[in-house]
Amino acid sequence: MPDSLNSDSLNIAIAGLGTVGTGVVKIIQQNKVLLTNRSEKTINITAVSARDKSRDRGINISDYQWFDDPVAMVKDSDADIIVELIGGADGPAKAVCEAALEKGKHVVTANKALIAEHGVSLAGKAEEKNISLLFEAAVAGGIPIIKALSEGLSANKLSRICGILNGTCNYIVTEMEKNNEEFEAVLDVAQKKGFAEADPSFDIDGIDAAHKLTILTSLAFGTKPSLKTLTIEGIRSISSLDISFAKELGFKIKLLGIAENIDGKICQRVHPCLIDRNAAIAKVDGVLNAVFPEGDFVGSTAYVGPGAGSYPTASAVVADIIDVSRESKRPPFVIKTSNLQELNSFPVENRVGAYYIRLMVLDKPGVLADITAILRDFSVSLESMVQRGRSPGNLVPVVMTTHDVVEKNIMDALSKMTQLETVIEKPVYIRIEVF
Amino acid sequence: MPDSLNSDSLNIAIAGLGTVGTGVVKIIQQNKVLLTNRSEKTINITAVSARDKSRDRGINISDYQWFDDPVAMVKDSDADIIVELIGGADGPAKAVCEAALEKGKHVVTANKALIAEHGVSLAGKAEEKNISLLFEAAVAGGIPIIKALSEGLSANKLSRICGILNGTCNYIVTEMEKNNEEFEAVLDVAQKKGFAEADPSFDIDGIDAAHKLTILTSLAFGTKPSLKTLTIEGIRSISSLDISFAKELGFKIKLLGIAENIDGKICQRVHPCLIDRNAAIAKVDGVLNAVFPEGDFVGSTAYVGPGAGSYPTASAVVADIIDVSRESKRPPFVIKTSNLQELNSFPVENRVGAYYIRLMVLDKPGVLADITAILRDFSVSLESMVQRGRSPGNLVPVVMTTHDVVEKNIMDALSKMTQLETVIEKPVYIRIEVF
Repeated sequence: MPDSLNSDSLNIAIAGLGTVGTGVVKIIQQNKVLLTNRSEKTINITAVSARDKSRDRGINISDYQWFDDPVAMVKDSDADIIVELIGGADGPAKAVCEAALEKGKHVVTANKALIAEHGVSLAGKAEEKNISLLFEAAVAGGIPIIKALSEGLSANKLSRICGILNGTCNYIVTEMEKNNEEFEAVLDVAQKKGFAEADPSFDIDGIDAAHKLTILTSLAFGTKPSLKTLTIEGIRSISSLDISFAKELGFKIKLLGIAENIDGKICQRVHPCLIDRNAAIAKVDGVLNAVFPEGDFVGSTAYVGPGAGSYPTASAVVADIIDVSRESKRPPFVIKTSNLQELNSFPVENRVGAYYIRLMVLDKPGVLADITAILRDFSVSLESMVQRGRSPGNLVPVVMTTHDVVEKNIMDALSKMTQLETVIEKPVYIRIEVF
Repeated sequence: MPDSLNSDSLNIAIAGLGTVGTGVVKIIQQNKVLLTNRSEKTINITAVSARDKSRDRGINISDYQWFDDPVAMVKDSDADIIVELIGGADGPAKAVCEAALEKGKHVVTANKALIAEHGVSLAGKAEEKNISLLFEAAVAGGIPIIKALSEGLSANKLSRICGILNGTCNYIVTEMEKNNEEFEAVLDVAQKKGFAEADPSFDIDGIDAAHKLTILTSLAFGTKPSLKTLTIEGIRSISSLDISFAKELGFKIKLLGIAENIDGKICQRVHPCLIDRNAAIAKVDGVLNAVFPEGDFVGSTAYVGPGAGSYPTASAVVADIIDVSRESKRPPFVIKTSNLQELNSFPVENRVGAYYIRLMVLDKPGVLADITAILRDFSVSLESMVQRGRSPGNLVPVVMTTHDVVEKNIMDALSKMTQLETVIEKPVYIRIEVF
């Protein structure tokens, strides 16, 4: 533990002054008295580092020592805590954290990619040095879900954790349903409103949610974060047609991150799901995030709030700073890294569950007979089937929901159906998740 | 800090083996490996105390030292942590906690009445001895809301905290609306299902929620828990007529605990509220609890889950035990007791907000003119007025919702209205809360 933690002040150096870094400075400046009261130390920002010193960020940073090089800041400042808000799994973000831990300085970061990819080695270093590595802001922004999983629910063996982990995606699917619009049109509006990046692929392809899910999975199940065992599907292929069929059937479509323990293996996935419109998770709309862990004793609990943005994310960063001041001895991943297991993956093709299927077929006699024969051959039994409208000789949608079945059978059945002359487009399938 | 915390094991003595105590034993027995991994110590129950040793609790307690007297257990057992689950603000519960703290033993309790009434003096003793006094289970059962307020949201100045803090009440009002039934009938069913006690007054009169709210208020605003400044109204007087009018107007009726900072004063109250049916808090139905804190940087977050019951409550107790093992240095009330302020109370009669009013009037010409004249005299302006049905000469309900107005004016206006010959029953008023 650095000596200075025994003093009455806690010195902070911040690497990265983008939207989150600026928020952190603002909170520490504005809530100084309150933070001192709660941490029992005076929290001083002593140094900052970013790409452009002269940029107007709407905050006064003239009292802080400036470093062009964040790694030099780690080495040459008097900080007890290095706050890493540069972002990215590698490059300067990783270099800053490694240098800080090596020097015995606590690290607080909001960097989900870094923790997902290098969290274990960084945590190992923190444990070796008996210092903190905290990353509450890396998942679900302002919602203290890492603390809930690591501490509040620590009495429980978890069976499943599900989350709406990307506000951009949740905003887009919410608006698609509300306005009956297609993905591209809503994305366009989201970008104009600042809810989606100019290059939105990181969000809409599910990568951001996947990084976050690997961290939740690790905390929930005591496994090393593992991106490579994670199935990822984004929201680009969601059509308003499927959203409206889902609605008709009593479902909503959401992009969820799901990790569950199935017979001792972990099934980790990020993909669009159909969920009962009356389930609590279905009611979390717009840019909000939400996480739903299920424990053996507590049952289901839910955590909902802003998952991104300058202030909510900065709120989590500053909470971690106060945690450092309280000297809690929790390892970064709840249990010691030496006790973390390799993730024993349950492949999604072995998933047993229900499915939504939409085919575009030529409206001709015998089509349904062909389709249902294939379903029978692969032991898929139907819960419902909807063929909306009639249009002999033309293309019409056939929508089905199945009873529980192994995913592999669905895939094989769909592959067989695409060989039918009457099935025109690639079949759509969406997993139905039960809450 | 007791020496034994430096060893590899943590000895627990449990005072009280009712529903929660039994749950704690079960969790520690069943999740032993997991808990050892997370706390980095072996958690051993070494002693227990309850009224009746021979009672069958469905758990094996033969390995634990038995004490008839819980205070003797504190003195004569080798426990590092005393878990107090006796209940009640005074008597043996208080004696056990005081004896434990005096002896330098950590205390974990689920006792809301004790913490609401004697929390500050107990916390002062814990601080003096540099030991932990934790009470996560005292509020909202399995939801780690005390941790969220004390740690996860600690960067924020809170403006308001609202909660559905009593599952019995929430179950009753939910069922009243769902089945269009009166309070007494639903209470009867709730008692049969085990959702309400044989003597339900502690729950339905709002006392239980009030105890919990004083604790939340204290954590949120840095004030001493203060029951005497709290306005309490229970749910006995809610009628299905008001629930159905509320529904017609787009509202739900819920018993809420609310604490808000108004110009530096704290307005604390537990009472039925009308809330927008589409607000997230309105969708928390049945026995669930939910807490909605609002912070200056994080904005609104929500925490939902089981607020009572053996296992959820025990889950919170065991989380506190693990917290002790991690030696976090957070004071029981977030800030040192010497820094807690006396609560400067904002009286509810000064509340500015909207109101729902129902009068039972004789359906005669001129009634509404009299009523609206009184409202005008007290500067109450109406948002809506509903007079359902016509029944000349008979009793009919007149329902009004107001624009924002000072509560005192509503009270004065209602008092004036009761003097009208045409207003027959005592007027009903319910505060409308905005989310």
